Formats: sequence, structure tokens, C-alpha cells
Amino acid sequence: MPTIPPIKHVAITGGTHGNELTGVHLLKHWRNNPEEICRDGLVTELHLANPKANGCNQRYLDQDLNRQFSWQDLSDHSLCGYEQTRAKSLNTLLGPKEAPRVDFIIDLHTTTANMGTTLVIKSDDPLVVGMAFYVKQQIPGVTLFYEPEERMSDNFLISMGKHHGLLLEVGPVPQGMLRWDVFNQTRQATLHCLDFLAAARHGTMPELPPTQSGFQFVEKLKLPENERGELAAMIHPDRQDTDYQPIEPGDPLFMSMDGKTLCYEGNETLFGAFINEAAYYDRHIGLSLMRKIDIRLPV
Amino acid sequence: MPTIPPIKHVAITGGTHGNELTGVHLLKHWRNNPEEICRDGLVTELHLANPKANGCNQRYLDQDLNRQFSWQDLSDHSLCGYEQTRAKSLNTLLGPKEAPRVDFIIDLHTTTANMGTTLVIKSDDPLVVGMAFYVKQQIPGVTLFYEPEERMSDNFLISMGKHHGLLLEVGPVPQGMLRWDVFNQTRQATLHCLDFLAAARHGTMPELPPTQSGFQFVEKLKLPENERGELAAMIHPDRQDTDYQPIEPGDPLFMSMDGKTLCYEGNETLFGAFINEAAYYDRHIGLSLMRKIDIRLPV
Repeated sequence: MPTIPPIKHVAITGGTHGNELTGVHLLKHWRNNPEEICRDGLVTELHLANPKANGCNQRYLDQDLNRQFSWQDLSDHSLCGYEQTRAKSLNTLLGPKEAPRVDFIIDLHTTTANMGTTLVIKSDDPLVVGMAFYVKQQIPGVTLFYEPEERMSDNFLISMGKHHGLLLEVGPVPQGMLRWDVFNQTRQATLHCLDFLAAARHGTMPELPPTQSGFQFVEKLKLPENERGELAAMIHPDRQDTDYQPIEPGDPLFMSMDGKTLCYEGNETLFGAFINEAAYYDRHIGLSLMRKIDIRLPV
Repeated sequence: MPTIPPIKHVAITGGTHGNELTGVHLLKHWRNNPEEICRDGLVTELHLANPKANGCNQRYLDQDLNRQFSWQDLSDHSLCGYEQTRAKSLNTLLGPKEAPRVDFIIDLHTTTANMGTTLVIKSDDPLVVGMAFYVKQQIPGVTLFYEPEERMSDNFLISMGKHHGLLLEVGPVPQGMLRWDVFNQTRQATLHCLDFLAAARHGTMPELPPTQSGFQFVEKLKLPENERGELAAMIHPDRQDTDYQPIEPGDPLFMSMDGKTLCYEGNETLFGAFINEAAYYDRHIGLSLMRKIDIRLPV
């Protein structure tokens, strides 16, 4: 591992999407049991990112909060919807984005897709990639989801820290609900993240492999629509719950309302993620296509 | 079967809970494919029960619509929340409750619980019980959920027909999402219901067994709360997805946030239903307890 400037201020955020209850209740749990997240040398804050949406048990009121954190949008005060405004308030609390007070943000999400514990890596920052590698070393079943973006232009909440942060996406669990398996997986992964940051601070980092296999985001695929723009098909039962499994050219992809199979027309074997994610129905998005890659630990 | 007065006007309703998309999209499918629900002698109407909640992808705006149809509440014009008002409008469209225009209502619901295809029987009307027995004859895996109530005081939408109607509850599927298995199970069960009504009309009813096994509703169990009234536990992983399986005295029932098992303290073996239903989190309800019974076909 390269030398990493010491970090101290860590924020764990949940309820960035108000109906993803796992993070919300983990924050409550840790408020009642602060010793569980206490790590020597770290100051860890807990923030419910969108309390109002959580109160309504909705993902958001006006806009998806987790798309409001680009530096450009934070600077644009004509963007004044509820979540656009809340993002500016979080910029004051955690940032400012150009010189953040908080060193590292761990943001807790859930998905209706069968993605297990997925670590979303949006940066080549060695602290971020190293954390993901470390968690995978502790919990081999986790999946690394790689979609790097420049921190200042990235619109995710995790881009508000000095380092780019890590997003945990755990499922399957319906919105507005808790499942013990998902709750406990999220908890365990988060605690490993804190262990890693504490080790990084104290220079006691474990040996990490130079590369790890993961998946790089390629594109989102829309669900088929009819001529009126209504949903005309849904995820094919052969694809349901098969996140991170290969999708070969010609494989069944969608099933029309009257039971006709529609196949994948690409010519490259790719892999699915966010398959049948409820939160993406507003834009009729059916799944993400991913490419299997080796992720390199930056040196 | 006893003689049943001929029925003609059938209503299939969906989206009574706005974020239960299966019924909503089945209605669209049948509007585009009316031949699928056409039965000689029957006039079948399709009604999206709560379009506004469906537009917002919420269960309801002000109140649960499927609790607003008691004759008393329909007559009380001081109840003027959105769903209370929508119920009065549906009373005009389908009813009036005291002398309904529509003979039979089939109302399509989904659940996040692992309840498969459940037929909710709220009446001892031979047409309702006979329909449920007939569907179970065609699809042996369906479950009969028995919770009889007097039609005029029942507050469910299906109580708005001349006969008490049948509610289909199919899961597991998250809110705001479609799964082909749930969609197709709901479709097949509904088509069998229509076949049965057509056979009843034409006096060509198949032989039905005198009794069928099913489950009678006993009570709802709340999730444990802490002293601040917050959720303190969730469904135990041993109970998750075990709808209609026995719960013995002493069986694990809930898991506290910090991983302690809380056991079932009843002294009778009962059975779970609506286990971890997302829609009941607003009242912190964890599951329904059911008693296994033989349901008798009224003669």
C-alpha cells in the first residue's frame, strides 16, 4: 500500500434513499451501541441523510438525493427541490466539497436485486480500493462493483469526503422492510471498513493482493415499452435473481406481458447487476450490464 | 352446490394499493387483450382502484383504501381524506353497497411475504367459497385464507359486490416491482375465477369437495419496540419466508437489532402469514397468526 495521509473523521450515512430501512436502523442501533463503531484514533459520525423521505417511507420527495452532489450542482442555487436543497445542507455539514471536513464517508444502501453485499468503488483512491480489497479478504462473498468517476463531478454522497468513500449496496430486500440477513451483512461489512480505516491510521495495514476480480459498469438496459411508453415486458424469470452471473448473446432477458421471451441482442458475454431494482422502475430501467475485470490496487 | 342466482357483472380491480404493480399491469394487459377475460354471459369490467396512489407509487396517500368500504364509513361524509373520498366514488361506480350494481369483485393484491397465491375468503357465500375451492382444484398449491366478516360492515373493496368477492394476495414481490412468476400466478388464478363464474352462470359447475383445508386468521403480532416506540427487533431469519408453516411454542420469532433471539410465547401451535409484510411496518406489525382449519363448502 502507498502511504496514505492519516484520516480521522469518518461519517456513516444511511437513509440517503428514505425507504432503504437497513441503513436507517443501523444508525439507530449504533447510536444506542456506540462502542460497536468506536475505533481508536477515529471520530465516527452517524447521519440520517434524508430524514424527510424516510419519514414518508419514500426513496425521495423531489429528486434522488444520491445524484445531487456534483460540485457544479452544489454551486447552482437555482436547483432548489427538496433533495437539491438537502444536498447543499449536507455540503455544509460534511464538506465543503472542495475542501471537506470529513475524511471518509461510508454510505449504506439496499437493493431489491439479488446482489448480496456489493461494494461500489467510484475512485482509484488507494484508500477506497484498499478498503474494498480488505473487506473482500474478510468476507470473500462480497462483490466489487467498479465505476470510477472524478470526485468533484461525481454526484454521489460518498464523493463529499476528502477521500471518495465507499457505497455499500446489499440485497435482496424490498423497500420499506428489514431482513436480518441483509441488516447483519451490512453491519459486518461496515465494521470491517472501520477496522481498515483504523489500521490505515495506525500504519498496521494487512497485506492486500495486488488485484481482485470485480465488475465494471458498462450500461443500463431499459425494459421494453409499448407505443404509449408503458411497460411492455418485465425481467425474464431466467434472469431474475441472477445478478453477477453471465448473460450470453441470445439469452432470455425480458418476458412480455403476454408471455413472449425477448432475448439479449448484444454480442459480448456480460454480467447483470441491479436486475429488477424497484427504484429504477420510474425510468423503466431493467438492469445494469457489467464487464468482469481485474481491479488493480493503486500503488 | 346450492342454487346461486345468476351473476353477470364482474369487476376486476387492481392498484387498490398503489404500489402493488402486478394488478395494475394485469389490468393494462387485459385492456389490450380483452379476449383473455371474455366469458360467455359475463360482462367483466376493469378498474384501477387508486390511480392517484399508483401515480405516486405509494400504497395510499391518506388512508389505506382497502379499509374504507364499510357501509357506515361510506355513509359518513365527515371522512373526507383522499381514500375515504375515493371509496365513496367507487361506491357510486360499483355499488351502492346496500344494493350493488356489480355482482362480484375480484381484487388483485401482492405481498412481500412468501405467501404464494393466497385466496382471501371473507364470506360464507357459497359462490365465494366455491370459487376458492374451484381455483384450488385447478392450482393445488394455492392457499385458502379464511376471515369471514359480515358484508355490510366489512371494509374491504371486495365487499362492494352483491356477493362478497374474492381477494387474491400473491407474493413474495417487493412493492413497486413486477416479477413474472407473481404476475403469471395472479393472471392464472384470476382466469380460473372467471371460468368458475361462467360455469356458475351456465349451471355447468364442476363437482367440488365438501371441505378444503385452509387457515383462519387469529391475530396480528407486533414487532418488539423500545421505550421510545422505535422498532427494536425484526423477523427472525428462521421465520423469514416460512408463511403457512407451523410456529411452535418456544420457536424463534424475532431477532433484536443486536442479534438476540426472541421466541414465540404462545402455547398453541399456529401458522404464520404476512410474515415481514412491508406494508405493515407503519404499524410495526410483524406477522399474522393463523389456525389450520377445514373450510366447509356451504350447502
